Amino acid sequence: MTQGATDMTIMRCEMDGKLAIITMTNQAKRNVLSEAMIDGIIAGLEQASQAKARVVILRAEPGCKVWSAGHDVSELPAAHRDPLGWSDPLRVVIRAIEEFPAPVIALIEGGVWGGACEMALACDIVVATPDSTFALTPAKLGIPYNVSGLLTFMNVTGIHMVREMAFTARPISAQRAQALGIVNHVRGAEEITYYCTMLARDIEKLAPLAIAVMKEEMRVLASAHSITPRMFERVQGLRRKVYDSQDYQEGVRAFKEKRQPNFTGE
Amino acid sequence: MTQGATDMTIMRCEMDGKLAIITMTNQAKRNVLSEAMIDGIIAGLEQASQAKARVVILRAEPGCKVWSAGHDVSELPAAHRDPLGWSDPLRVVIRAIEEFPAPVIALIEGGVWGGACEMALACDIVVATPDSTFALTPAKLGIPYNVSGLLTFMNVTGIHMVREMAFTARPISAQRAQALGIVNHVRGAEEITYYCTMLARDIEKLAPLAIAVMKEEMRVLASAHSITPRMFERVQGLRRKVYDSQDYQEGVRAFKEKRQPNFTGE
Amino acid sequence: MTQGATDMTIMRCEMDGKLAIITMTNQAKRNVLSEAMIDGIIAGLEQASQAKARVVILRAEPGCKVWSAGHDVSELPAAHRDPLGWSDPLRVVIRAIEEFPAPVIALIEGGVWGGACEMALACDIVVATPDSTFALTPAKLGIPYNVSGLLTFMNVTGIHMVREMAFTARPISAQRAQALGIVNHVRGAEEITYYCTMLARDIEKLAPLAIAVMKEEMRVLASAHSITPRMFERVQGLRRKVYDSQDYQEGVRAFKEKRQPNFTGE
Amino acid sequence: MTQGATDMTIMRCEMDGKLAIITMTNQAKRNVLSEAMIDGIIAGLEQASQAKARVVILRAEPGCKVWSAGHDVSELPAAHRDPLGWSDPLRVVIRAIEEFPAPVIALIEGGVWGGACEMALACDIVVATPDSTFALTPAKLGIPYNVSGLLTFMNVTGIHMVREMAFTARPISAQRAQALGIVNHVRGAEEITYYCTMLARDIEKLAPLAIAVMKEEMRVLASAHSITPRMFERVQGLRRKVYDSQDYQEGVRAFKEKRQPNFTGE
Amino acid sequence: MTQGATDMTIMRCEMDGKLAIITMTNQAKRNVLSEAMIDGIIAGLEQASQAKARVVILRAEPGCKVWSAGHDVSELPAAHRDPLGWSDPLRVVIRAIEEFPAPVIALIEGGVWGGACEMALACDIVVATPDSTFALTPAKLGIPYNVSGLLTFMNVTGIHMVREMAFTARPISAQRAQALGIVNHVRGAEEITYYCTMLARDIEKLAPLAIAVMKEEMRVLASAHSITPRMFERVQGLRRKVYDSQDYQEGVRAFKEKRQPNFTGE
Amino acid sequence: MTQGATDMTIMRCEMDGKLAIITMTNQAKRNVLSEAMIDGIIAGLEQASQAKARVVILRAEPGCKVWSAGHDVSELPAAHRDPLGWSDPLRVVIRAIEEFPAPVIALIEGGVWGGACEMALACDIVVATPDSTFALTPAKLGIPYNVSGLLTFMNVTGIHMVREMAFTARPISAQRAQALGIVNHVRGAEEITYYCTMLARDIEKLAPLAIAVMKEEMRVLASAHSITPRMFERVQGLRRKVYDSQDYQEGVRAFKEKRQPNFTGE
Ligand code: NI
Ligand code: NI
Ligand code: NI
Repeated sequence: MTQGATDMTIMRCEMDGKLAIITMTNQAKRNVLSEAMIDGIIAGLEQASQAKARVVILRAEPGCKVWSAGHDVSELPAAHRDPLGWSDPLRVVIRAIEEFPAPVIALIEGGVWGGACEMALACDIVVATPDSTFALTPAKLGIPYNVSGLLTFMNVTGIHMVREMAFTARPISAQRAQALGIVNHVRGAEEITYYCTMLARDIEKLAPLAIAVMKEEMRVLASAHSITPRMFERVQGLRRKVYDSQDYQEGVRAFKEKRQPNFTGE
Repeated sequence: MTQGATDMTIMRCEMDGKLAIITMTNQAKRNVLSEAMIDGIIAGLEQASQAKARVVILRAEPGCKVWSAGHDVSELPAAHRDPLGWSDPLRVVIRAIEEFPAPVIALIEGGVWGGACEMALACDIVVATPDSTFALTPAKLGIPYNVSGLLTFMNVTGIHMVREMAFTARPISAQRAQALGIVNHVRGAEEITYYCTMLARDIEKLAPLAIAVMKEEMRVLASAHSITPRMFERVQGLRRKVYDSQDYQEGVRAFKEKRQPNFTGE
Repeated sequence: MTQGATDMTIMRCEMDGKLAIITMTNQAKRNVLSEAMIDGIIAGLEQASQAKARVVILRAEPGCKVWSAGHDVSELPAAHRDPLGWSDPLRVVIRAIEEFPAPVIALIEGGVWGGACEMALACDIVVATPDSTFALTPAKLGIPYNVSGLLTFMNVTGIHMVREMAFTARPISAQRAQALGIVNHVRGAEEITYYCTMLARDIEKLAPLAIAVMKEEMRVLASAHSITPRMFERVQGLRRKVYDSQDYQEGVRAFKEKRQPNFTGE
Repeated sequence: MTQGATDMTIMRCEMDGKLAIITMTNQAKRNVLSEAMIDGIIAGLEQASQAKARVVILRAEPGCKVWSAGHDVSELPAAHRDPLGWSDPLRVVIRAIEEFPAPVIALIEGGVWGGACEMALACDIVVATPDSTFALTPAKLGIPYNVSGLLTFMNVTGIHMVREMAFTARPISAQRAQALGIVNHVRGAEEITYYCTMLARDIEKLAPLAIAVMKEEMRVLASAHSITPRMFERVQGLRRKVYDSQDYQEGVRAFKEKRQPNFTGE
Repeated sequence: MTQGATDMTIMRCEMDGKLAIITMTNQAKRNVLSEAMIDGIIAGLEQASQAKARVVILRAEPGCKVWSAGHDVSELPAAHRDPLGWSDPLRVVIRAIEEFPAPVIALIEGGVWGGACEMALACDIVVATPDSTFALTPAKLGIPYNVSGLLTFMNVTGIHMVREMAFTARPISAQRAQALGIVNHVRGAEEITYYCTMLARDIEKLAPLAIAVMKEEMRVLASAHSITPRMFERVQGLRRKVYDSQDYQEGVRAFKEKRQPNFTGE
Repeated sequence: MTQGATDMTIMRCEMDGKLAIITMTNQAKRNVLSEAMIDGIIAGLEQASQAKARVVILRAEPGCKVWSAGHDVSELPAAHRDPLGWSDPLRVVIRAIEEFPAPVIALIEGGVWGGACEMALACDIVVATPDSTFALTPAKLGIPYNVSGLLTFMNVTGIHMVREMAFTARPISAQRAQALGIVNHVRGAEEITYYCTMLARDIEKLAPLAIAVMKEEMRVLASAHSITPRMFERVQGLRRKVYDSQDYQEGVRAFKEKRQPNFTGE
């Protein structure tokens, strides 16, 4: 999506044999998913692809408190524009992970918020430290999440859990996430890197073409919740009302002013 | 969709037994599909519904040169907004016709342009005078037509004809339209009113509930070209690029200035 | 579907090389699609299948005035039951024709009414004499046609023609049917048998497995207008209101009493 | 769906700020989902909607043994009619909950049987006391559950659990339901009201439009398991055989006579 | 799909302002769709794309007797392999035409056979000389046509015409093709080039982005005949039986030996 | 699918009242799913069907170490052929279980590998001993799993678990499988037979027609992840690349030679 030089102060990509490790390093800004960060992750995936990596680990730096704070709110459109259109950086990176022809393991330590929550769940396998948390927060900002984004969550776990996350914006713990299939394994911070590396080693030994085609087949099946043009246009009309609303502007403004928003439903 | 008083200078609705006749009367403005005109048509349909009309004729006044000129360009968004969103008046009237629980006959005399072309074709049966013409003109203005709108055309005739209409914006004659199933019958201006009335009389005698349910079943089947959320969002992204383009602004401007647009593809 | 002995007074099946000819012979009852007639046609198709027929001609006797009058109204449920359920004879024969692993040519002479109209159009190729006519008549009886039945028509020609047929119940001529792709060829009564036989001869020479698989692929594609369970149940609910209505009972009664029905919409 | 006066002896609706609490109060009849009860719940939802409630709690009275016993068997059709058609009260209330534009929390205490089980699971979030149980019981009565109803269960948890519930009719415990994502939280009877109120308080603070559109998007995605008209009509035919069967009549009769049914499969 | 140098003895591509003209020049081999020819056409489309062509004409040389003879039978797999897999040259060129971001006009003179028939119909607009003919011939060779290939035909015209073409392999005339919407216009050989150029001039003046997005929307809608994995795998199994059959080998052999095949259905 | 005599040395089928017990007895070959074994299981299901069994238990012999080792690798095609086509024995038995008109309980003791893992999960209810394990192993052999096969897994549990199983080929424990809804109940080897029999007894008492139709409805809903012909053909093309690859041949060869494969991705 974006070429140019990758900003190495916010992420780095290393190869360890057939394993590529992409690390978000912008702790100062809580690894916010700015356009620059997402360019970096995509550049990392491209590098991994060229190096014929058989598995990727996507992670933040050890010891971080926030894995990623999600959308860079300062980059959201002010009003009257879909904040989650096709070329929005979050949508671009989700597709890049889904289409990457080898497994992507999310190694989670710290808080995973908003759009970062979808990015983590769009990975193939999720391993988390016990104090990691996951929060789906668009309702805090007044943002109408997009349809394929919600489908990412619905393919991971049952609809009651997804609704609780979406409607309460409460963080859920790694343990609860594991119990419901969101997280594959919980491992302590001291061993999670080793655990993920061993998982990657096992994947490396298997047939990469067979894995790539199964990943693609599952991607196709998971997205196969087709709806009529009419229904989609109706939903799009509902979403437009939301990003045209005063609440959307209030949500973004309150976030920037670091205060509680006052939503009126208008 | 819109309440308020209907402007009777631009349309009128009469009952003739169980037949409702909705006539667009704004010849001065070539029956342009302004919000007011569409409010009028929808009010007419509601009136017909309350009168338990078993069939509706939608027409312009006898002798008119333009049946309807389509979208009111002055009402299109200036830029950066989808001009064919869910609550756009054209979309609203198309759905009102499709969902009307009895047959709607389009009685066509004169030119049918742009959005009016879809409105005519969304009717159940189309009868036209020999010198009527049909033109699908969004490419003249640089407007990205919406998905369910194009589906209206694709359900009426084969895809080669639809593409010719959409990609050349050339008007097609009533005779050619008839040969390809777009127009049901061609009748001279002197007899078309009588012909449509007789058609309506035949419909009135039949079982209205059976007709209503068959109309609804066909509406559902015709819209059943489902696509994945991902595919739809991609198309929506492509459409957004078009209404964000300079060409969109040039098309609308040139129309208002009554000159040829100069499209650059940017 | 039905075993038992076939009643040879109402139909017969003959083999002419690799061509099977199924003839409806119940002119006295205008080849009404009674359960017995449909048993006969299905038995004929099974016989053709066992004889490894490479093509079938489905016809009435030469010189008949009515190719088939459609549903046997005396077999319709009196009230409160879906008259076009899955095991209704009409539905059964439609599927038998669609699933027959070789082309079925409808040789049409005379009037084709109601359910017979769908049976004729469900054939792969339709050849008709110039004075044949086609009428879709459920609205005369107050019957709610079923969804897959309407889809048969929508796959044959454009939606404006289908709606005119369904909403007016007017017979359409062979010539008009040909112009809109419903009928493949119009041939005089004196030559239609020869013409269809020559068509069959051409088919016989081709690869039967390739033809069978293309027929099946087209069947699958033609039926691929999927709808959600919710939408289907809604439509089914609408249909139930119709067969629970007084109009349904009035339509059936009037037909038996050979008088015009008086439909009230209730 | 139903106007008229709501019977306050079987349910009540109260507003607590922006929270609406709908309580089923017909303990004498185990909160059976009679038409009157469902009218009451729907009236409660409408009242909540008019009061612009941002969240609803649906509950039975504290201390009840049966949250709801499900379908009022005395209202089921005797035979030869689909007992779960589009306008069946259970189907109506399920859609009302799904379409309510704010989250509905099911506060469960006691046994949840049959149709009530679907009603509880159609809520957005489910909180239950430790001794609550959930039983899916149509196979006890011989009733063919409808397609969209089974889809409600399949969207909540994996298919093995749904099949066990449907095929054994055994009640499952709140703990097991929680482990599999059916129940969001288990809380003791003494604290469950407080817990649900706090959950509601959190929801109230968030952007209501963003929540409403996400709920609607998920509803659309969850129902997007489209099937062909042919397939649906086949399933409908199978269901008809069941409600035409002797077993259906035996099941209903045995229930009323409070004895074990004797099913023969005919 | 294929790089390498394009063989200019079999095709050429010229720009005429914003119009690209791709001419198949291999009359000696009747413009057979060999891998080399298709590489050439695709190279021509890429050249047109880089030159920002707003319209393409795809044609054979003036005066040719055969526009294209379709598949190069010598390149078909001998046996036990799908002859129409995803990367088969015919499938590749069909997709290239469908995805080309501007209209492609097929200028037809002479016979159009087999795979070339699909290639011509996959173009957006078809203009033909009066003595052109179209023949769909896989049943002559015993080849199981693929699903998306048959869908190309079904989107162009009604199913009765498609079945006649597929099951009889008879050539149809330009006039009949026009009557059924397959051909947009019939023009004499002496004027067809001029006619198509004028058509192209009209397209050039319109908004290219609006045209491109409408073409893509129609491509998506036309392909939106979704089927279940199970159904597709079943069809694929049927197709495999055909290309594993003796008839497939007989068909290819007979073609090479220039004799009539003798198909046994085995 | 296969007639002939069933080899009783590899499986047996017994009736216990209305319960049919199918036991795989080929411990010597670890109950490998050879064509003979699958013929046996299908014969058992047919026998159960004729005996009007209301429930089936599918099991291995008590005390076995391997419930089933999955595909018989010696029966896989050497190269260039889809190893999981429609008539592959594994696909046939999966469909037979799904279409069996009564619940099938998988009683699991020991390791369940590869294709046997899908066979176990295609059963309606799964009960396992604590030391059972489940491994999805096509990536060990380089086999491209088919689309409907992966859908079997995706309907049972969340996508993160399915991906971990598919991409790591690691066996998962009965406990973890239970936590994620794959296994319904874990019971010790000493009581599992009794437990399953009691489960069966409960099912036997319920209405068999209601159960059969619910099973069929769920089968239809679970398979309703429809995709376009184009998308499916693309996936099929990707799968073909895999079974045409050197890695596929290496995987099969290494398995037969009982050594680690060396996959190169080519
Ligand atoms: Ni799904
Ligand atoms: Ni369609
Ligand atoms: Ni279609």
